[in-house]
Amino acid sequence: MPARPRPAPPWDVEAWLNTDAPLNLDGLRGKVVVLEAFQMLCRGCVEAGLPQANRVFRTFSPADVAVVGMHTVFEHHDAQTPTALRAFLHEYRYTFPVGIDRLGGPMALPHTMAAYTMQGTPTLVLIDRAGLRRAQHFGHVSDLVLGAEIMALMQEPAPGDTGARHGEVAP
Amino acid sequence: MPARPRPAPPWDVEAWLNTDAPLNLDGLRGKVVVLEAFQMLCRGCVEAGLPQANRVFRTFSPADVAVVGMHTVFEHHDAQTPTALRAFLHEYRYTFPVGIDRLGGPMALPHTMAAYTMQGTPTLVLIDRAGLRRAQHFGHVSDLVLGAEIMALMQEPAPGDTGARHGEVAP
Amino acid sequence: MPARPRPAPPWDVEAWLNTDAPLNLDGLRGKVVVLEAFQMLCRGCVEAGLPQANRVFRTFSPADVAVVGMHTVFEHHDAQTPTALRAFLHEYRYTFPVGIDRLGGPMALPHTMAAYTMQGTPTLVLIDRAGLRRAQHFGHVSDLVLGAEIMALMQEPAPGDTGARHGEVAP
Amino acid sequence: MPARPRPAPPWDVEAWLNTDAPLNLDGLRGKVVVLEAFQMLCRGCVEAGLPQANRVFRTFSPADVAVVGMHTVFEHHDAQTPTALRAFLHEYRYTFPVGIDRLGGPMALPHTMAAYTMQGTPTLVLIDRAGLRRAQHFGHVSDLVLGAEIMALMQEPAPGDTGARHGEVAP
Repeated sequence: MPARPRPAPPWDVEAWLNTDAPLNLDGLRGKVVVLEAFQMLCRGCVEAGLPQANRVFRTFSPADVAVVGMHTVFEHHDAQTPTALRAFLHEYRYTFPVGIDRLGGPMALPHTMAAYTMQGTPTLVLIDRAGLRRAQHFGHVSDLVLGAEIMALMQEPAPGDTGARHGEVAP
Repeated sequence: MPARPRPAPPWDVEAWLNTDAPLNLDGLRGKVVVLEAFQMLCRGCVEAGLPQANRVFRTFSPADVAVVGMHTVFEHHDAQTPTALRAFLHEYRYTFPVGIDRLGGPMALPHTMAAYTMQGTPTLVLIDRAGLRRAQHFGHVSDLVLGAEIMALMQEPAPGDTGARHGEVAP
Repeated sequence: MPARPRPAPPWDVEAWLNTDAPLNLDGLRGKVVVLEAFQMLCRGCVEAGLPQANRVFRTFSPADVAVVGMHTVFEHHDAQTPTALRAFLHEYRYTFPVGIDRLGGPMALPHTMAAYTMQGTPTLVLIDRAGLRRAQHFGHVSDLVLGAEIMALMQEPAPGDTGARHGEVAP
Repeated sequence: MPARPRPAPPWDVEAWLNTDAPLNLDGLRGKVVVLEAFQMLCRGCVEAGLPQANRVFRTFSPADVAVVGMHTVFEHHDAQTPTALRAFLHEYRYTFPVGIDRLGGPMALPHTMAAYTMQGTPTLVLIDRAGLRRAQHFGHVSDLVLGAEIMALMQEPAPGDTGARHGEVAP
C-alpha cells in the first residue's frame, strides 16, 4: 500500500451494465469499493479474478462493500465489444455492475486503466470509505488476504461517522 | 453408442483456424477423430470441454488421433464472431484445428450441429478410423472413460489394414 | 457469534507437538488465536480444514495471530495415536503447534472438545486478544469470511492497549 | 513398458481387508489388474493415487478390471498399522480389496514392494489378462493415459479365449 493514500482516480466509463444508473466514486462514498479490472478474453480474469470478485459480491453486505467490474480493453478490441461483454456476463451469471472503460487513453490504454497505471488484467483495487485508494493487486491475491484487507477498511469510520464501525460478515 | 454405427455426417464449415488447409472426414480416414463442438462463451466448454480436448491433443499421437474443434454458434451470434473466436483461441493457447460451423441450418442451428443432432455445447463426438460415428457425449465425460473409448477405437484396424493395430500412448 | 462473548475454555492437553513448551490461553493473551480442532483420519480435516489452518499460519504474522491445532480424537482411538499423529504431521509438513486433547471427557469425548461443545471435526474456533471465544465454525468456512473475521479481531485493542491496533497482512 | 512382458511377481500379503477371501494373481487370471501400491500417510497417495484407483474401480466392470490396493509400508511402521489402515479405509469409504504387504523383505522394504522393485508410493501397476506385468507408474499418471492403457489390455484376448474381446466402459 502507498505510504500516504491518495484519492482514487475517477472512472471514465462509456457504458454501464448490470445497473440502472451510472456509478461513480462520489456516489459510493461511505462504502468500501472493490474494483475488478478485467478483460473478457483474459484467461486469468475468467478463471480467477472474476470468480473471486463474485465471491466478494456474495459474501459481504452491499451496504458495506460495493463490487464493481471494469472492462479495461487494451487488446482484441474488435472481439471484446460491448455486445460480446454483455453475452459473456449473461453466460457466466455475473450480476454486479460492470463499467466499460473508455477507449482512447494514453499509450493506447483505456482511460481508467491508464489513470490507475494498471500493469494488466486482472487488477483488483481497494478503495476505502473516504474514496482513497488503499491497495492495488495485479494478478493473484489470496482470499484470506483479500478478506482481511476488506475487513480492515470496513472497520474504519466512514466520513462523517462519529465512531468506529464494526463490519459484519454474512457467511 | 448406437447399435449399428453409421457414417459421421460431413462437416459444413465456413472457415478454418489453426490449420493451413481445410479439414474433412475423408481426409482424416484412418485416424480416430475427436470432434469437440463448443461455443467460446459457453462456460462448460471453457472450463471443462476445451481443456479436455486439449489434453487429448497433447496425450495421443497425431498419427493416430485427430482433435478437431467445431465452433457451433447457436446463440449470441453477434458476440461469438470469427474475429472473437480467433482472439479467444490465441489467449487460451489452443492450437488444434477449429472449424466455424456454417450458420443458417435447420431450427436456427448451424449446419453441422444440426446434422449431428447435438443437444447443446459442449458435445464430444468420437469417429472411428473408418469414418463411423461411434459415440457422442453431451456435457461431461470423464477422462478415464474418454481415454478408454479412444483406445478402443485406436486398436481397431484402419480401412485397408490387414491386421489389428495397437495404438501407443505417449504419457 | 454469541451475543455476549465469554472466555474460551482452557485447553486440557496430554502432549504438545511442534512446540518446545506447552501452550495455554493465558500465554497467548494479546494475540488472536485460531484453534483448528481435527482428527488425522477425518477426511474433511485432511482435505479442507488443515490446509486452511496452514494458509492462515503462512498468511498472518505470528505476532498477531497464533494458529494452534488440537487433535480431538473421539473415534478410532487405536489408530489415531500420538505416534501416528506425529508421522502424519511430518508427512504433511505441518509445523504449527498441535495439542493432543486429553481422552476421557464427558460423553466419551476428549476434554477440550467437550468443554467447547464441538459437534465434530473439523471445528475452527476464533479467540480474541482478550481470550474471549468469538466464533466457532463446524465444517467449512470460506477463506474470505475467515480472513475478514481474523482481521476484525486483529484490529481490536489488546488488553492493556491504549489505542486501536491496525493489523498488517503479509500477502 | 518393458520390451518383453514378464509375469507379475506374486503378492506376499499378511492380511486382506475389504474382501472375504485372500486374492492372488492366479485367481484373477483373465482380468486386467490395476494394483495400487500406497501408504495411508503418503500425501500423494491420499490426494491423487487412491482417488484415481477408486475412479477406476467405479468406472470399469469388475468382470473385466480388478482394482487391488496394496499397503506397502516402508516407513512410519508404528503409525501405519493394520488397525490404522482399517480406520483409514473406513473414513475414506474405499471398498476395493486391500492387501497388507508382508514386512521384513530385502532392504527394509515389504516383500511385494521389493519384488516389484518399486521406487516409492504411490505406484500403479498394470497386469494383463495373462498375468504379465505391462506397465508400472511411480507417481502421477493422467486419467486419459490410464484409461487408454486399461482399455488396451481389456481388448486383448484372455488366456483360452478364441477371439479378441471388446471391453465395455460403463460411463
